[in-house]
Amino acid sequence: MRDTTIVQQATPTSPTIDELLTAGDTSAVRAQFADAHPADIADILERLTLAKRPLAWNYIPETVKGEVLAELTEGVFKNLAHELDKQELIDAIKVLDIDDIADLIPDMPEALLADVLFAVDVETRNNLGEVLSYPEDSAGGLMNFDATVVRDNVSLDVVLHYLRLKTELPDNTDTIYLVDREKRLKGILPINTLLTQPGHHLAIDHAIESPVSFRCLDSEQDVAKAFADYNLITAPVVDESGRLLGRITIDDVVDVIREQAEHDIMAAAGLREEEDIFAPVARTSRRRTIWLAVNLVTALLGSWVIGLFEGSIQQLVALAVLMPIVASMGGNAGTQTLTVVIRGMSVGTISSENFYNVLQKETLVGMLNGVIWATVIALIASLWYQDLQLGLVIAAAMTANLFMGAVAGVFIPILLEKVNIDPALAGGVALTTVTDVVGYFSVLGLATVILL
Amino acid sequence: MRDTTIVQQATPTSPTIDELLTAGDTSAVRAQFADAHPADIADILERLTLAKRPLAWNYIPETVKGEVLAELTEGVFKNLAHELDKQELIDAIKVLDIDDIADLIPDMPEALLADVLFAVDVETRNNLGEVLSYPEDSAGGLMNFDATVVRDNVSLDVVLHYLRLKTELPDNTDTIYLVDREKRLKGILPINTLLTQPGHHLAIDHAIESPVSFRCLDSEQDVAKAFADYNLITAPVVDESGRLLGRITIDDVVDVIREQAEHDIMAAAGLREEEDIFAPVARTSRRRTIWLAVNLVTALLGSWVIGLFEGSIQQLVALAVLMPIVASMGGNAGTQTLTVVIRGMSVGTISSENFYNVLQKETLVGMLNGVIWATVIALIASLWYQDLQLGLVIAAAMTANLFMGAVAGVFIPILLEKVNIDPALAGGVALTTVTDVVGYFSVLGLATVILL
Repeated sequence: MRDTTIVQQATPTSPTIDELLTAGDTSAVRAQFADAHPADIADILERLTLAKRPLAWNYIPETVKGEVLAELTEGVFKNLAHELDKQELIDAIKVLDIDDIADLIPDMPEALLADVLFAVDVETRNNLGEVLSYPEDSAGGLMNFDATVVRDNVSLDVVLHYLRLKTELPDNTDTIYLVDREKRLKGILPINTLLTQPGHHLAIDHAIESPVSFRCLDSEQDVAKAFADYNLITAPVVDESGRLLGRITIDDVVDVIREQAEHDIMAAAGLREEEDIFAPVARTSRRRTIWLAVNLVTALLGSWVIGLFEGSIQQLVALAVLMPIVASMGGNAGTQTLTVVIRGMSVGTISSENFYNVLQKETLVGMLNGVIWATVIALIASLWYQDLQLGLVIAAAMTANLFMGAVAGVFIPILLEKVNIDPALAGGVALTTVTDVVGYFSVLGLATVILL
Repeated sequence: MRDTTIVQQATPTSPTIDELLTAGDTSAVRAQFADAHPADIADILERLTLAKRPLAWNYIPETVKGEVLAELTEGVFKNLAHELDKQELIDAIKVLDIDDIADLIPDMPEALLADVLFAVDVETRNNLGEVLSYPEDSAGGLMNFDATVVRDNVSLDVVLHYLRLKTELPDNTDTIYLVDREKRLKGILPINTLLTQPGHHLAIDHAIESPVSFRCLDSEQDVAKAFADYNLITAPVVDESGRLLGRITIDDVVDVIREQAEHDIMAAAGLREEEDIFAPVARTSRRRTIWLAVNLVTALLGSWVIGLFEGSIQQLVALAVLMPIVASMGGNAGTQTLTVVIRGMSVGTISSENFYNVLQKETLVGMLNGVIWATVIALIASLWYQDLQLGLVIAAAMTANLFMGAVAGVFIPILLEKVNIDPALAGGVALTTVTDVVGYFSVLGLATVILL
């Protein structure tokens, strides 16, 4: 049961933890941490630079250190775990829920992992083994083992009596799971029926007999979509013969939803989600290198196209001035289509079923926009260089590139998905490569043929 | 209480709703909709083209039509609402929960709105008035009025007795709200205590006395963060004197979290979230126009810089070939910094408190990357054009632009936020404008001074 206080928002005049640490006012730091929620302490740690975090760690109450670790983003946990005393980490981690320990494991230093597995009790170790046997991003990886389970042939009074014997129920217990002798799930009983229905009724008569349930290998995306669509608080995980294995709770699903969003946003810039903003400079630079390398190769491809027409540029230098506009507009219009298609695929609105309808609509939009902006750029170029023919060439190139941008915006994510490359990661680079090459080539090629 | 079945995933061979509609097999459509969850029916409608949606609508069971409307994305609801019979819409909408009706109102045709307000009962209309008096993106706008409330001086047995008089509790009832005579919130009682604790105990003794609560004008971002951080299922909304106004439930917060993610992703390409993928071509094109217009202006700015150096390009056409590489690398490196900073600001890891630490780190990364990629490009350019001096000029420009990209990546979102422009929307354009201008200017300027 949660009964912690939210940490008070620092008023503009009150010093931050960072300032208190700098000033060495450790008792003030201790006091602020004393009744703060672990999630808020984790937020504070993340905002501190690398050097200050182990310092702040010392003033966190022992009882919540584990939960603070569980609330840290992966990158920050990883960096902090290397700085702290091993035994202290083990003591903090071993009391956590199984799914929380499982979440930390991939980011633990190897030496720590073995000791943590040794420190937990046998049941936890076995359950951990089960959770870890499933992919991190599967229903099995999200599963917890704290479901409240009763036999399917009992009355509501018996269930009530059983619950009274426990003095506390696990967090997020909105349902009781009814199973038969073989542990097969027969139904889920909303806990509220225990309060509103007569006690002599059979539990099964008030249960939902075909609840939304998951299999261990279901993807966490599907789990998240189902929780959101069907407004679930908890849901059972069952095996192929319908036996209850565990349950998934909304708090973990909310984390999944947030991480997915984070992933899509960060991936578009070639970044990882869950990265520590204060990771060491050399490591950050190394992480971003691949992305910049890929970008250099695509940029060189564009330059190579320009290089083919050096002679034309020398004859008509206006081409060098105007060609970036065509490339850029194609890239922007194409990115709009690309974004719509990637999101549509990711939330399920776009599939092979309506692919041609989407292609048709987006190319029509591309052509319409192409004509509009071609007219505008024709005017601008004609006036700038007092050359109507130049304006018309740029306009034709613009139309072609906006059309290509739309086509590429639809096809690129679909092709990337086919070859198992994350469209959120590679889609943008692939698209701007296409619109740069087509943009430069159409401006310079058309000009060479028509104007020179 | 939820007891609907999930729609069966169509097997590869079974026809889709789209195909069934085309084939005119209406009884099969009706059968598929008959026991589908409203959220799944909404998904199916969204995947259909504009023309087919009103057709499919006819086969949705009357009892779930309202919930289907509530599950549609805003753009799709808007388009569909214009196609359907007004009386049918009113009948579907008037039975919905207050927060669902409130969500639909901004997208209703005006003629419909008045009739809906006329059709609902007085209590609903008053509550709707209250919800609508708060901004759509505030805690007040998310509020519902179905909290289960008892006086704060009663025993658990009295609470139990009261609940038994109702035969059903509202969805997501995980807590009972304890209020005093003036309706001031005195504590929240986890419903599970009713099952595990002795009946003669006072409710208040088992209640959380300072629960996480919200004020009507709290932003929905803050609500979402608190729900995620503190693992809430429901939370009370109170006024300035602590009186209970209503409650917020996790299902609505999950929608907020998903919409925020959608917003950030779509805004980066100048798109709105909740847009209908099959909105009419002319409307889509118009919506995207402003974004392309802004982009054209920034592209022209880049071209103007290039135009300043036409003479230099004519003398050394290699500059036209190489300058896009420098602009592009600066844009990409800068976008990485920008993305990190925008996300950090949005999740709260970056604030004025640690701004200088972030600036320091990102500019160090920018300089390090600048030196690395300057070396690479110097080699490439020197070899391509057999001109070491040219290589060095490009390298110097590259260093300058990657450094500028990092600085701009940190400052742009902070400046945009200061002037109340959404950094997720305008950050990318602003950044690439800077890196294009600096990239072109440094290549062409340095070349003019040093090489020509």
